[in-house]
Amino acid sequence: MAPATVTIASGATWQEVVADRQRHRDATVAEIRPPVPAVRKEDIPLNTTGIPKKLLTEQEVQITNTDVEDLVKKITSGEWSSATVTNAFLRRAGLAQKLTNSITELLPKRALDKAAELDQYLAANKKPIGPLHGVPISVKEHIPIKGEDINAGFVGWVGQVAEEDALIVQYLESAGAVIFARTTQPQTLMQIETDSNLYGITVNPYNTTLSAGGSSGGEGALIGLRGSILGIGTDIGGSIRVPAASNGLFGYKPTSQRLPTAGWVAAMAGAESILAAIGPISTSLEGLRAFSKSIIDQKPWFKQPSLVALDWRDSAQYYPERKLRVGVIYDDGVVRPHPPVLRALNEFVGKLQKSPGVEVVEWKPWKHDLAWSIIAKIYFADGGADVKAAVNSSSEPWRPLAKFILHENPDVTEHTITTLWKAILERDDYRTAYAKLWNENPVDVILSPAGPGVATKHGTGRYWGYTSQWNLLDYPAIIFPTTDAVTDAPREQPYEYPEGYQPLNERDKYVYGLWKEHGAEGFDDEKLFRAAQILLEEAGLPTAVPA
Amino acid sequence: MAPATVTIASGATWQEVVADRQRHRDATVAEIRPPVPAVRKEDIPLNTTGIPKKLLTEQEVQITNTDVEDLVKKITSGEWSSATVTNAFLRRAGLAQKLTNSITELLPKRALDKAAELDQYLAANKKPIGPLHGVPISVKEHIPIKGEDINAGFVGWVGQVAEEDALIVQYLESAGAVIFARTTQPQTLMQIETDSNLYGITVNPYNTTLSAGGSSGGEGALIGLRGSILGIGTDIGGSIRVPAASNGLFGYKPTSQRLPTAGWVAAMAGAESILAAIGPISTSLEGLRAFSKSIIDQKPWFKQPSLVALDWRDSAQYYPERKLRVGVIYDDGVVRPHPPVLRALNEFVGKLQKSPGVEVVEWKPWKHDLAWSIIAKIYFADGGADVKAAVNSSSEPWRPLAKFILHENPDVTEHTITTLWKAILERDDYRTAYAKLWNENPVDVILSPAGPGVATKHGTGRYWGYTSQWNLLDYPAIIFPTTDAVTDAPREQPYEYPEGYQPLNERDKYVYGLWKEHGAEGFDDEKLFRAAQILLEEAGLPTAVPA
Repeated sequence: MAPATVTIASGATWQEVVADRQRHRDATVAEIRPPVPAVRKEDIPLNTTGIPKKLLTEQEVQITNTDVEDLVKKITSGEWSSATVTNAFLRRAGLAQKLTNSITELLPKRALDKAAELDQYLAANKKPIGPLHGVPISVKEHIPIKGEDINAGFVGWVGQVAEEDALIVQYLESAGAVIFARTTQPQTLMQIETDSNLYGITVNPYNTTLSAGGSSGGEGALIGLRGSILGIGTDIGGSIRVPAASNGLFGYKPTSQRLPTAGWVAAMAGAESILAAIGPISTSLEGLRAFSKSIIDQKPWFKQPSLVALDWRDSAQYYPERKLRVGVIYDDGVVRPHPPVLRALNEFVGKLQKSPGVEVVEWKPWKHDLAWSIIAKIYFADGGADVKAAVNSSSEPWRPLAKFILHENPDVTEHTITTLWKAILERDDYRTAYAKLWNENPVDVILSPAGPGVATKHGTGRYWGYTSQWNLLDYPAIIFPTTDAVTDAPREQPYEYPEGYQPLNERDKYVYGLWKEHGAEGFDDEKLFRAAQILLEEAGLPTAVPA
Repeated sequence: MAPATVTIASGATWQEVVADRQRHRDATVAEIRPPVPAVRKEDIPLNTTGIPKKLLTEQEVQITNTDVEDLVKKITSGEWSSATVTNAFLRRAGLAQKLTNSITELLPKRALDKAAELDQYLAANKKPIGPLHGVPISVKEHIPIKGEDINAGFVGWVGQVAEEDALIVQYLESAGAVIFARTTQPQTLMQIETDSNLYGITVNPYNTTLSAGGSSGGEGALIGLRGSILGIGTDIGGSIRVPAASNGLFGYKPTSQRLPTAGWVAAMAGAESILAAIGPISTSLEGLRAFSKSIIDQKPWFKQPSLVALDWRDSAQYYPERKLRVGVIYDDGVVRPHPPVLRALNEFVGKLQKSPGVEVVEWKPWKHDLAWSIIAKIYFADGGADVKAAVNSSSEPWRPLAKFILHENPDVTEHTITTLWKAILERDDYRTAYAKLWNENPVDVILSPAGPGVATKHGTGRYWGYTSQWNLLDYPAIIFPTTDAVTDAPREQPYEYPEGYQPLNERDKYVYGLWKEHGAEGFDDEKLFRAAQILLEEAGLPTAVPA
């Protein structure tokens, strides 16, 4: 029988709660058989992505290097059992934990029981149970898993036990998924890095001195290291997209009322003026699609009536012949992207310009600074009282970026109902104006960086504007990786800010300073978040991350 | 040149503002040629519906007795010009004003200019400009018409001039509609009758001692008298459905994000926790459909991005062969319907039970009293401050039902952000629970009375629960008339409350008292609000109101 959870309510200090949670996490990793290989801290290199190949079996590497679409085929054809697949991912995820600190717990019993069931089902019925038959899925911690603690990143909340799986988890399991791991998130969930007192900092597998992004950074790092190939994140300002971009992955932030959020646990429950979305991060574009379709095909609006009753439509029907018109944002007019981001963007656009199927035009961002100010004034409509109460429900200290966004953010506003209604009208006016702009300059998709730089140095992720823009507008967004690496080859595009660059404002100055101080510092991938599935197909780009 | 509008801001008393508005209204009626027949107050009978036939020309009666679907055919075939049709409706609407007090102004110049344009277009192009070519449409006053005053029922707001048409008006005009009349609404818009200081009480054309319903009661009375056959109403608690039911008409309250509301003027702008819907009232089911389809086919989400990007789908595709399962609400468990409502419901269900295409089951309402309490606590989240400020922007007195819903309503709550979020969670829990109930007892539609009685005696419309239930849940609703008249023929169903009836609660007691005091008092039509288009087709019911 599992030992009782140590909690603030039971009289423990916050440090004791943290120690217990981490013990619990380590205990779940220690259950894996064969044991997860030991890794000495001092042996971990900056770039950890080569480690799994060295420490796991050849079959484990082969399985975990497979993308969702092929994994389902291999399991349903009988090449690999679901049990074998599940165990391989448990092993790689356990290793990813040691390398990147991205796991809150593994779920070996639940996962292996489910895998055995699936294997029996397949043997008995000669057909898969659903479109995700056997696909292991990792889950951000604040999305409940029955019988597990659910703390949403607050020390004081430790000790709540989920009575049932979150709705999205139920649908994914019905589709055949195997829930096998839970992942880290930052204190308050309102950071674009992943830093909490409960689990510390989640690091980037490509460079451990950099952040894995946030708030779904546990997913980002875990999938970046292929300890998972499909996971669930949530996003109210960039929390799916920043981790996807920071780890060279695919990510999808749907329009807010398409995938079911029911059951998730977070501060500010009941706030609805900016709606958070739930969505997948994966190693392939098809992973995003299969995830979304498998849920929507089950008509989740019958159980979560706020969802739009809209079936998943076949993407192939769109743009059968016509030229795709792509608007490009090179710079949002608030914070200039770092040179490697602009270089990668230019290279990518250069490829598109050679395609007869694509027409590229510039998209002039319209008042993205106003957009940030509007959304930031609505995020914490109670002045942050609920989030502050959650942090202060123990004596855990404030983490720096949580403090930054709540305590050092001049836009945080404690609203009355009257001022909230005014803020909502401002939001709607902005949405209407942006739609008008789009009508006047019709493009099919907008291609934009996901942020001003590559993955951030720990503690420096302060500018969300490139992603929060699309939460304010509630437009869907897909993130995909473009270039493999920053190389030293000479390039036409200068790999620097223009000479004598004068920052536009304090935010731009801060990000410019980061570049001057850190540059891209050994991080192999620049990531730019870009447009919809059709754009990738038209541009003939890879739709999966090289394993 | 039109005289300047008399306003509070220009120093007038509220009575002077009212007198000026009514002068303006009468002046627009006086512009109609030939002049609208005079009617002496003392000559108006209880039931006014026979008057138009006596005072209008035969052709005018014939035109205005035509439903939307046939009117379009007659105009596009050249049988009637749009100019002739428009003038006939202007004349009948002017007469309806004299009989029911339902008009804020007629728009003869705009309407006749548009009609002439349409006639020229048809002559030049030999095809209609759109699916509503030549259909006159009346518009509830708080939906702006360019260049016209827009006061939303508040004396203090008189003097605002609309800079452009509301978005829905733009789409309707693009589809060929002729905007020709604006209609009354009650003070605050939060009444289910139509009583304002600006225009007084709008009365029911079938019995002038009864209300036309509200808040879209001007539309109800005008269309009930066929001074219009298609009009725009708005509904946050029953404001389309109660007037449709009270006047024997068809009404459609869509799900909230399907038809465009942008531009409308009302108190509490920015409130979004209970969303009001905009929709049609018509003399025919096809009128509702043509209205909705003509707008949605223009993809209004491009201009109002909050709308769901969902095309209008062909209703004929649904239930191609299977039995329609209909749940019936006989009593919401809070307030028992009056005997004629129950009798009409039983008669209607009796017809359905004979249909092989329909299976009838009872629908047990689940906590509709809780539903009312939840919605009433959210309606005026600022404690009514904004509405009160609007009323108090002049010294106009409070109308009785506005006072009732705001000042005498124990559920009105002045929220903080924190308590609002809690109220939203209660709302969502209720929605989820109701959806669960529906999943456990699957029916295709629910058939329910629209209210506890037939049209109310003036000033007694206090119980909204039969309609507000579906605003809280945000389910779509269609209203249709069932029986023609209350006759004296003996019936098996007793035309009374059960002997020794004990009211369930204060609300039930109030409504029971209304029955005891007034009965159905000479009102010819009982109205029950029922289900979707398919139900009507299956039951073989008329889809238009007999002219």
